[in-house]
Amino acid sequence: MGEFELIARYFTRPLPPGGGVALGVGDDCALLAPRPGMQLAVSSDMLVEGRHFFADVYPAHLGHKALAVNLSDLAACGARPLGFMLALALPRMDEVWLEGFARGLLALADAHHCPLVGGDTTAGPLTICVTVFGEVPAGGALLRSGARPGDDIWVSGTPGLARLALDALRGQLHLDASALAVLRRRLEQPEPRVALGQALAGCASSAIDVSDGLLGDLGHILRASGVGARVEADAAAALIGGCEPLAGLAEALGQELLLRCVLSGGDDYELLFTAEAQARSAVQSAARACGVPVTRIGRIEAQPGLRLVDAQGAAVEGRFPGFDHFA
Amino acid sequence: MGEFELIARYFTRPLPPGGGVALGVGDDCALLAPRPGMQLAVSSDMLVEGRHFFADVYPAHLGHKALAVNLSDLAACGARPLGFMLALALPRMDEVWLEGFARGLLALADAHHCPLVGGDTTAGPLTICVTVFGEVPAGGALLRSGARPGDDIWVSGTPGLARLALDALRGQLHLDASALAVLRRRLEQPEPRVALGQALAGCASSAIDVSDGLLGDLGHILRASGVGARVEADAAAALIGGCEPLAGLAEALGQELLLRCVLSGGDDYELLFTAEAQARSAVQSAARACGVPVTRIGRIEAQPGLRLVDAQGAAVEGRFPGFDHFA
Repeated sequence: MGEFELIARYFTRPLPPGGGVALGVGDDCALLAPRPGMQLAVSSDMLVEGRHFFADVYPAHLGHKALAVNLSDLAACGARPLGFMLALALPRMDEVWLEGFARGLLALADAHHCPLVGGDTTAGPLTICVTVFGEVPAGGALLRSGARPGDDIWVSGTPGLARLALDALRGQLHLDASALAVLRRRLEQPEPRVALGQALAGCASSAIDVSDGLLGDLGHILRASGVGARVEADAAAALIGGCEPLAGLAEALGQELLLRCVLSGGDDYELLFTAEAQARSAVQSAARACGVPVTRIGRIEAQPGLRLVDAQGAAVEGRFPGFDHFA
Repeated sequence: MGEFELIARYFTRPLPPGGGVALGVGDDCALLAPRPGMQLAVSSDMLVEGRHFFADVYPAHLGHKALAVNLSDLAACGARPLGFMLALALPRMDEVWLEGFARGLLALADAHHCPLVGGDTTAGPLTICVTVFGEVPAGGALLRSGARPGDDIWVSGTPGLARLALDALRGQLHLDASALAVLRRRLEQPEPRVALGQALAGCASSAIDVSDGLLGDLGHILRASGVGARVEADAAAALIGGCEPLAGLAEALGQELLLRCVLSGGDDYELLFTAEAQARSAVQSAARACGVPVTRIGRIEAQPGLRLVDAQGAAVEGRFPGFDHFA
């Protein structure tokens, strides 16, 4: 099967009507038509076998994740997805793999009304590069640079679960099968917070998605905004305990491990964002409307640096990757 | 050096003023602001070491080519470049390589006012994925599907030179050093026909860039337009003879090799396009304004299929990859 047949068989589908795509797969370029007054948000992520995924991952999960990590970048800007490009290097023509990969990829694309509009396929070491396009009202994108002293720091869902899953898959942690299944889904099939990002565009002051770890990603907001922050360790560690299917697990794992996973684990694709204190009810309403829990875990401060504190405001000791740079 | 420092050191530059980029490198997404009434043209190409380039290629040439092949897709749509994303997998941190790669990449970007707006870097087998963005008036893009019976078939510059260079580098062809230098530049540093593409948007009926070989790429136009074509072998073979620095070379190489290179050689990134016969002077004016020669090499016909003919209209025998499928 040649490149063109491969694209036709696995990746070409009719465009959804009424979307922002004027021309999809099959010409030299795809043509996007954002609505008047909209800017185009674009993001690109490259996934490499052995680094971003295990060789034995389910192809459908990999297809899902390759798009999810990009949709998550749109979410962090508050953008509505329009479409995406897929560039794929494949070591060999493996139809079973391709069928599964395309199924996972396109199922998530359908769920977010984000059609595949073009791309490239070639022979090579398994590498997946997705570039995603979304639209956002001009001047209305959520940026990393908007956090101000006094703003609350919020996070969606339960960051840290992907890292727990990774530790378990690496054999560094023992979990029973049902807990592992829940966690593994978070690692392999993260749900990008696309609706939440759009809902927050009116009430949050800054946002980023948690891909490298909560503290490291918060550091990006602090640098871009020229501010510091105080993060409450108990509130952060309680996130996993508050996650229903894992309630029994939290105590057994211990506070230090939980804290390390929540603060330094990557690959969660939750949204970390800031909002003025007076926007608390607006944030809660936006989150409820999207069915995604959000939790306040700290506050932006004028003093540069990142301080991890206990309930009494005393510094919490410990080594958390992503943290030391900002202490 | 981490990912963030790498991006800052080699790839972050101030955005040119007045362009279509509202936000460049450094947030979750870049923000593009096409002008009112414009559509966004997007294209992605992935280059893999050992397949698209030799491991010993000059990094600056590789940087140039990685962007050039994408700008060429914009050219084929008649789009004006706005910016591009770079996703890069690197086997190791090699500052000499990165400096050269970035230099070649950004020099071509500057020449086309097409800034780097974002991307991704990771460890992995050397793989380069560029996604380029351009703007084109809504409804005004050059497509593959617009060719009509009676249209002339035109090609810019001299397709076939990249293939001659490849044959020489593989030792299948002996060339003196000065001829090889000319040809090698065409293979490693192709000049995307960006200005010509925009100039042709008003007078051509269809276009594609010659990446897979002239006949194969013409086949894409024929299929998309539901037409056939007649290509004049003498006109095609004369292209290389008409290329000044190689004039002495053409005779020595022989008509059959020339024809094979022109018709089946890929990697040239010339524009292959069609236009109504009455647009001949408009096409010539557009080409002159851009300083790029264009040559008529055949005609679109209603009868499906692709016919290669001599000056008397008789079928030319020979095996040309990309041709047999359409005979």
